[in-house]
Amino acid sequence: MNIMIPYLSDEKLGRLTAEYPNVNFLHPEDNNEVLTLAPKIEATYGFCTPELIDAASNLRWIQVGSAGVERYPFDLIRERGITFTNAKEIYGPQLADHNMALILAFSRQLPFLFKAQQANVWESRKNFPPGELEGETLLVVGLGGTGLETARRARGFGMRIKATRRKLDLPCPDFVDSVHPPGELHALLPEADWVAVCLPLTKHTRDAFGNEEFSLMKKTAYIVCVTRGGIINTDAVTRAVGRKEIAGAGLDVTDPEPLPDDHPLWGYDNVIVTPHASGHSPNAGPRMFELFFENVGRFVKSEALINVVDLDLQY
Amino acid sequence: MNIMIPYLSDEKLGRLTAEYPNVNFLHPEDNNEVLTLAPKIEATYGFCTPELIDAASNLRWIQVGSAGVERYPFDLIRERGITFTNAKEIYGPQLADHNMALILAFSRQLPFLFKAQQANVWESRKNFPPGELEGETLLVVGLGGTGLETARRARGFGMRIKATRRKLDLPCPDFVDSVHPPGELHALLPEADWVAVCLPLTKHTRDAFGNEEFSLMKKTAYIVCVTRGGIINTDAVTRAVGRKEIAGAGLDVTDPEPLPDDHPLWGYDNVIVTPHASGHSPNAGPRMFELFFENVGRFVKSEALINVVDLDLQY
Repeated sequence: MNIMIPYLSDEKLGRLTAEYPNVNFLHPEDNNEVLTLAPKIEATYGFCTPELIDAASNLRWIQVGSAGVERYPFDLIRERGITFTNAKEIYGPQLADHNMALILAFSRQLPFLFKAQQANVWESRKNFPPGELEGETLLVVGLGGTGLETARRARGFGMRIKATRRKLDLPCPDFVDSVHPPGELHALLPEADWVAVCLPLTKHTRDAFGNEEFSLMKKTAYIVCVTRGGIINTDAVTRAVGRKEIAGAGLDVTDPEPLPDDHPLWGYDNVIVTPHASGHSPNAGPRMFELFFENVGRFVKSEALINVVDLDLQY
Repeated sequence: MNIMIPYLSDEKLGRLTAEYPNVNFLHPEDNNEVLTLAPKIEATYGFCTPELIDAASNLRWIQVGSAGVERYPFDLIRERGITFTNAKEIYGPQLADHNMALILAFSRQLPFLFKAQQANVWESRKNFPPGELEGETLLVVGLGGTGLETARRARGFGMRIKATRRKLDLPCPDFVDSVHPPGELHALLPEADWVAVCLPLTKHTRDAFGNEEFSLMKKTAYIVCVTRGGIINTDAVTRAVGRKEIAGAGLDVTDPEPLPDDHPLWGYDNVIVTPHASGHSPNAGPRMFELFFENVGRFVKSEALINVVDLDLQY
């Protein structure tokens, strides 16, 4: 059996070859070799392009290294009957850390206080005391890998946590107060002090937050998003923060990316923009390798793989 | 019975007088009136000066509105046999929020990213990826009101939590991995990725962190403190961050305060200074009133008060 892999350290490659001696792990040196090797492979980690899929007639499994899979050729993958697995839950911890960093930065007024520090001025924000998260309501929109980890962290702060999730048959974790179907979003938005948008970007979630959703939020509420740009409509959030229809927005993802350097979002006092940095973590690579290692074993034994993407839901 | 009180809203005063009809709540208009009323009072909320204590021969209870009580006249209070209660646990939630805001700001590199935002630049920090709190070790120095709340929050991030505390007879909370006597600090420091100094400032804790303690920390570790300046020696922390003996420091409290505007701590990339803002919260006033309300009831019935300060330990 042949599996195409990206560059892996000798230590990682050694673990794979020791554990799976009957598998050849092929690492292409360049794009040409990707297509040359393609006809031989049954599986690939990465390299998920229409060209590769077309050239790989024996391909039965694609593992990708991202959790968001909006850019992959779903129709072709479905047509070919290929099993498609993603990096769900590999990035959850650090994305949730980033969500909480954005929430706490607003709550403790760090953007204002950083500017005061730059001016060597010992001054807090007059007539605008910081908040306190205990007792405030967090609405987690999308209780997947990132949403669950965000809720778990927020619970330690004594927040009340409501969440929406499509898969209502899954159990409600004990750190979430209530789980609701996505259709209840509009009824939930007016109750939230904080909204953490943790959805994947799919054809169903694009522009999920527009003018109407912002108009339903409290004027004192903040929204944060670290999963994908395009779920929050850029023009709508720019308008909402500019007119102070909401208190502010913390965005690690924008549409487009990079955010153009003349975009007004950069300059608002009530906006934090970070450059799609929430996924960075020294632990992401090791976690991703362990997932791939486990899935290779399952693939070899024809067992069900972990993190199979629903090709209709696109996550 | 007469109790001297600061200005309270009509609603709060109404609750007190309705619940305790046999108590006169006296609010002095100015400093002169504080001393004029003093001989009549059995208790006071605030106004804790040597002059008031000397003039109040019937004084049996002093409630103060701060958790840190290092500035009060302990010898005089002890000599007079007065019960002294503080605001322990009133500020714990927001101080713990601030601790986590500082920790996450460093972990997610917000000081760097805020500067990038100010320059409209979509760029994360090269060769210095953000961290992830899961699995990292937090050392909580002082497991009181702030320390406990900090540990509770940190646990939601999957951190390993060690703590020091003088009162080892208290149970170890389930969100703390191990509790150690203060004398083990030097043995614990080398294991910590994060050190949250949550001690009160007392004669025992002044300069608890000096050159030796910083030399025992990992070069990659950060220290944060939101309780009182003077526990961390200012010269020592300035030296440690300047020489990069530690990764950085997040300080909401300094010695002196305000931090002088020409102090080098303002300018270091690996330092966050906030202006003693961690206690700010819209919930602090209401919580403090409920504590006072409860303690008045206990005082009237000669029951044990909440938050009695140990005059030897000074907290």
